[in-house]
Amino acid sequence: MYCWFLAASLLGAASARVATPGNETLPYLDAALPAHERARDLLGRMTWEDKVGQLGGIRRAVSRVNGEPSFNRTAFEQTRKTQNGQVGLGFQMNWADEVLPIVNELRQEQIDDSRLHIPYITIADSVNGIWVSGGTLFPGTNAMASSWNVNLYAQAVEVIRDENLAIGVQWVLSPEVDLAKDPRNGRNGEMYGEDAYLASEFATQYIKTMQEQDDDGWVKVATTIKHWVYGQGSGGVNRASMHGGINHVLNDLGAPYIKPIREAKPLSLMASYASVDHVPLSVNRHLLQDVLRDIVGFQGLIMSDANAIEYLYTESKVARSPMDAAKKAIKAGLEHELHPGGHGVFTTLIDAEDDEEIVSLLDESVLALLQIKFLTGQFDKPLPTIGDMKATLRKKEHLEVNKNMSRESIVMLQNDGLLPLTKGHLGKVAVIGPYADIINAGMYAACNSTDPAYGSSFRRSMERELGADAVLYAQGTNSILPSNDTDDASIQEAVSAAKDAGLAVLVLGSGLGTFDPSTVNNERTDQEGFAHADLSFPGQQQQLLEAVLDTGIPTILIMSSGQNFLLPDSILARTSAVFHSFLSGEFTGDVLVEILLGETNPSGKLTVTIPEANGAFPVAYDFLPSDDRGGFGAATKYDWHWPQLTRSPALRFGYGLSYTSFEIGNVTATAARGACNTTAVHVSASVTNTGERAGQEVVQVYYRPDVSVIEMPVMKLIRFSKVEVEAGDTVQVEFVVPGRDLGYFVNGDWVADGGDYAFWVGSSSRLEDLTQVNVTLSH
Amino acid sequence: MYCWFLAASLLGAASARVATPGNETLPYLDAALPAHERARDLLGRMTWEDKVGQLGGIRRAVSRVNGEPSFNRTAFEQTRKTQNGQVGLGFQMNWADEVLPIVNELRQEQIDDSRLHIPYITIADSVNGIWVSGGTLFPGTNAMASSWNVNLYAQAVEVIRDENLAIGVQWVLSPEVDLAKDPRNGRNGEMYGEDAYLASEFATQYIKTMQEQDDDGWVKVATTIKHWVYGQGSGGVNRASMHGGINHVLNDLGAPYIKPIREAKPLSLMASYASVDHVPLSVNRHLLQDVLRDIVGFQGLIMSDANAIEYLYTESKVARSPMDAAKKAIKAGLEHELHPGGHGVFTTLIDAEDDEEIVSLLDESVLALLQIKFLTGQFDKPLPTIGDMKATLRKKEHLEVNKNMSRESIVMLQNDGLLPLTKGHLGKVAVIGPYADIINAGMYAACNSTDPAYGSSFRRSMERELGADAVLYAQGTNSILPSNDTDDASIQEAVSAAKDAGLAVLVLGSGLGTFDPSTVNNERTDQEGFAHADLSFPGQQQQLLEAVLDTGIPTILIMSSGQNFLLPDSILARTSAVFHSFLSGEFTGDVLVEILLGETNPSGKLTVTIPEANGAFPVAYDFLPSDDRGGFGAATKYDWHWPQLTRSPALRFGYGLSYTSFEIGNVTATAARGACNTTAVHVSASVTNTGERAGQEVVQVYYRPDVSVIEMPVMKLIRFSKVEVEAGDTVQVEFVVPGRDLGYFVNGDWVADGGDYAFWVGSSSRLEDLTQVNVTLSH
Repeated sequence: MYCWFLAASLLGAASARVATPGNETLPYLDAALPAHERARDLLGRMTWEDKVGQLGGIRRAVSRVNGEPSFNRTAFEQTRKTQNGQVGLGFQMNWADEVLPIVNELRQEQIDDSRLHIPYITIADSVNGIWVSGGTLFPGTNAMASSWNVNLYAQAVEVIRDENLAIGVQWVLSPEVDLAKDPRNGRNGEMYGEDAYLASEFATQYIKTMQEQDDDGWVKVATTIKHWVYGQGSGGVNRASMHGGINHVLNDLGAPYIKPIREAKPLSLMASYASVDHVPLSVNRHLLQDVLRDIVGFQGLIMSDANAIEYLYTESKVARSPMDAAKKAIKAGLEHELHPGGHGVFTTLIDAEDDEEIVSLLDESVLALLQIKFLTGQFDKPLPTIGDMKATLRKKEHLEVNKNMSRESIVMLQNDGLLPLTKGHLGKVAVIGPYADIINAGMYAACNSTDPAYGSSFRRSMERELGADAVLYAQGTNSILPSNDTDDASIQEAVSAAKDAGLAVLVLGSGLGTFDPSTVNNERTDQEGFAHADLSFPGQQQQLLEAVLDTGIPTILIMSSGQNFLLPDSILARTSAVFHSFLSGEFTGDVLVEILLGETNPSGKLTVTIPEANGAFPVAYDFLPSDDRGGFGAATKYDWHWPQLTRSPALRFGYGLSYTSFEIGNVTATAARGACNTTAVHVSASVTNTGERAGQEVVQVYYRPDVSVIEMPVMKLIRFSKVEVEAGDTVQVEFVVPGRDLGYFVNGDWVADGGDYAFWVGSSSRLEDLTQVNVTLSH
Repeated sequence: MYCWFLAASLLGAASARVATPGNETLPYLDAALPAHERARDLLGRMTWEDKVGQLGGIRRAVSRVNGEPSFNRTAFEQTRKTQNGQVGLGFQMNWADEVLPIVNELRQEQIDDSRLHIPYITIADSVNGIWVSGGTLFPGTNAMASSWNVNLYAQAVEVIRDENLAIGVQWVLSPEVDLAKDPRNGRNGEMYGEDAYLASEFATQYIKTMQEQDDDGWVKVATTIKHWVYGQGSGGVNRASMHGGINHVLNDLGAPYIKPIREAKPLSLMASYASVDHVPLSVNRHLLQDVLRDIVGFQGLIMSDANAIEYLYTESKVARSPMDAAKKAIKAGLEHELHPGGHGVFTTLIDAEDDEEIVSLLDESVLALLQIKFLTGQFDKPLPTIGDMKATLRKKEHLEVNKNMSRESIVMLQNDGLLPLTKGHLGKVAVIGPYADIINAGMYAACNSTDPAYGSSFRRSMERELGADAVLYAQGTNSILPSNDTDDASIQEAVSAAKDAGLAVLVLGSGLGTFDPSTVNNERTDQEGFAHADLSFPGQQQQLLEAVLDTGIPTILIMSSGQNFLLPDSILARTSAVFHSFLSGEFTGDVLVEILLGETNPSGKLTVTIPEANGAFPVAYDFLPSDDRGGFGAATKYDWHWPQLTRSPALRFGYGLSYTSFEIGNVTATAARGACNTTAVHVSASVTNTGERAGQEVVQVYYRPDVSVIEMPVMKLIRFSKVEVEAGDTVQVEFVVPGRDLGYFVNGDWVADGGDYAFWVGSSSRLEDLTQVNVTLSH
């Protein structure tokens, strides 16, 4: 492989502004014209080859070899000829300042050398930060959603957006609004949880913030809402199929897409890998056109997931060749191919110029991409500079937002009174577990956990706060992967540490299974592609936990992962406190220490219900009433009779503890008629902090129609609000729910007929944490 | 409760023949006229009250109190006035000769007293025999299906049919063709397994045999195909919802219904409890009319499941009142209400005479029931006599068929060479386990396991065969229910027995959890309503198994249940032989002994794949190829990455061992054009018995189109044949598969376009047991 490096100095002054002498007067170069006019003008000048080229791109431009970025010019040129719509940054372990000069050069080259000077747009995954190393590393999406703080999330997305802009990325492959309905799914950490309303609120905010226009009117960063539709694949498996009629698609799987698409208008959308009702989304005209375009109203570009078009002939076998797959996909509505490397399948359309339907669809597809490029200023804005980039990434304000977000994203699930610890009165603390000394940021994060620039692990934070001598660290086991051998010596070492210290904090989980970033893609137990048939802690971690609990030493358990783990009574009864920190950011370690010491009061709430046993799922709180009737009649409300388990376990959606206590009272719900003769339900409640210290509570509003045309869940979240209340104070919360929001889709039509409703207001989805009020809404 | 007994002597001569003086000339009483004409004539004479009365019935006429049948006249009369379409026998622990006189009396009374002398039809569940005690008790449906012997099944159904006729039951609530796709489902034992083709072959045979006409042209016993649609409810839970688009419904869940409905024309069908795509089947006009009537072509009566119409307003809340539910249900297509007791919801239609649509639909509904009554001779045949009944039930030929069926229904899953045992050389045998001394016949069987008239338990069979002294029986644990305490003393007793004997046979399972038949409905771990979140053996049985295996004594494991249990390598590696006997019949114990001693060569094959772990499901062999891609690319064909588990476990659909060995060779598949220019694939193979003794092998043919319009499973069963081969002999098998059979439904249309196909022929669905041949079929 020929490694080709560019000196940053050469590129500092590079400019993307497409301004070739003699072309100034062409309409597509006129920044004053609207994007769609410019796109149409440019399209008219393009050859068939130019057009086909725009259908794909080069996703992984820069790889990494021996700790250095590596660019393969030969491979790049081979792909570039036929795929030149977008360019990706490449391997995420590279540093931003290494990658920016290379990508800038490639972008400039494309502008300068191509016939019509059509720039690439730079595209990247962006989950808890920018794709390459060197940016602010936020906790994972499920952690941020656990804050239930959409305003704070807006600040976080602003940071991520500005850092993307600083490295020239103006098109991200987020947000992922798929619902985490199956606890086995390895991608739950990238999602906003199991609830459609919560996910849609966060996703709408993500898109609005990312796609905000700059002072010149350019969209800052285009977004890609994904993966239409996904989240409940057979067996919890990543790319597996779903069954779905139109009511299930529109009311459940697709429900979180609707508000973001209609209100925030994401410029693109990614179709999922999955087959729904036996039809892979990449050829599913019904779901891409009839449902997504016509009913939901999506107007942006529809792209494939990586390799998805190829899988049509290699796996699902609904096409007989690459060209057959390409034709079927574009006819179903796919407009752009995301291809992780090598030649894309859409390039085979180069030979389809005689097919009139393809010619017309291809024009539409190219227009969709060109509009994104024009809207984001690709033809008009200068390339980013290293200097601006350095001034932007990880600046003080960014880190501050991140720290605030980290503080609110951790969920306390149990506290027998041991916490908060009192710093002055602490002796030694044993810090135990394979996840205690890494930053477990998730598969799509760009972080090198050994680099102190990324904040610190929980162990390092503890040592900094309490002094190295006070922290007895023991990894506990190196057996955290399916194939690992047993490691009883390490468990014994951990037990000794716990006994010596008299207080143990265990950090267990799944995710990154190594300290060596070069193997980041291999040694994992939680990521895309890792469905969990077993929901206990991987490897010997479960034995480690048992062994430490067997000592009888007071123990705090911190879970670290995108997934949920089983917490049977046998564990909970012997554990003083339990937290879930989900996928970590760079400050998760620091903030966990703040929380243990009482400097920060935890305020996160579960966005995903924790099942009671392997096999006892699905358990999302919003199940259908008939799903809760395994036995005969209402007297035995159990789903599973062997063993007897309920579909409503204690650690349920919306649940989370604080160091103070709240009372939510004076709950009312009244129907009112507003402007334009619309009806609405006004919900109000008071939140009193009945404890000794300030804290934040998430007031949650759920509802259910008494009667509905189709079967509706036992309850659904309809509003929430996070409020800060001083000790002894009372805060009033008010919600207005227009009658229209209380409806549901029946065969594609929205039905919101009014009638009798139950509303519940409280601090979680658990009936014991809710107050019910009834209201009648006239039609 | 007023208990009212009738002396059998009074009723011996009762006659159902509807022949009231002066009515002989009415068309509906003319047996020479076709059923539909008679029904229409009678309908014209009926009042609104008469009609509404036909919509329901009295399902549980006779209960049991203190070991005696008990009839409550007051309750009966209250219901009878408004629900008089059919009558059920009542509690299944009653004996046939106790119940027949009472039911005969009730039937005669109805004929004599009612205005138009419209008889009831007697209806009953009938799974592995007649509903009340005293008949031939076959093994459960999943056991009989494991024989893969449809001809033998026809003989079994003939027995069940004739015994039903002997007690006057002419309408049964079978067959259940739902697919056992979720291993957690507590009703899997009542189903034919996970495969649509296998289930449809058995169900077609069931219906044809049951509905055979007698010499006078009367249908012997009307059948009810059920539950349209069911088998993959959320969480494996009995009444839980399914998601389903039309392709999933027609190609998967509903697929086993199509051949039985089209070829065998069951006179009735039961709609399931489930919501599909959020719409409960009882109000699902799309699935009952557009799909079931219009596409599948069902022409019989559609009935509700017990209480299902009530659940519309009590649970799924798609109706606001009983009458609202009744109207919605009849408008969706329900024509008859199965109600387990008290007043049915359809009785509320008495107040809907002013609704023209209801009036018309109600006429159609009544006609549907009347036709069943006319077709089965209710107006014309005499009531059964006690004498005929006694001559029919459990006659020698019936028991012989049952024994043959039992011999073929047991599946041997492992044999390290220990088996068969040699009777003369056997010392003592420890017979251990809570299922060793009962007949575990399933929830819908009528058996009193303490009554020796029902054959014998495995323990009793062993004692009879080997002598009581040679059998060391130990129950092993009485902890077989979720709530039971531990029972370590019993485990130690079993361990001692194993050590004393030097050979242990463990019979473990789920199902009947008691020896006391009076509690039959309460103490169970496997039945309708018992979804299994945990697939290990219930209670302390798992510990019992471990304890016996820890002795190192050679151990044979026999599983007894409708469900499958996990058999991890840690168990299999220490167990000499493993059998699954599924739900037992009266001869299962005897036949297990024959098999252990080598007098019978096992020939059963799994109809349900055994998953490798709790949570590692679904695992039916016919998954979609994209469901098998948890990881990246084809190199990692694992569904579940933590732990690494495949969707194709070793103990897969179609698998089962024999004491001899077979080689299936010379596999060919050729395309041929036949009559009317139709195409077909001719498949042939030779089966050689390469072992030392005669045996039976099930030759299985699977296929997959190379390319399809929608995503198709990795393989599907398309033909099978069970052949007997003498040691050293070779038998040739031939199959003809019309091209039309190789198609699938796309949006309701059957697509069978020809093209390239892979065929596999062999002894199980495991690739290592199959030979692949390719064939091209012209359009």
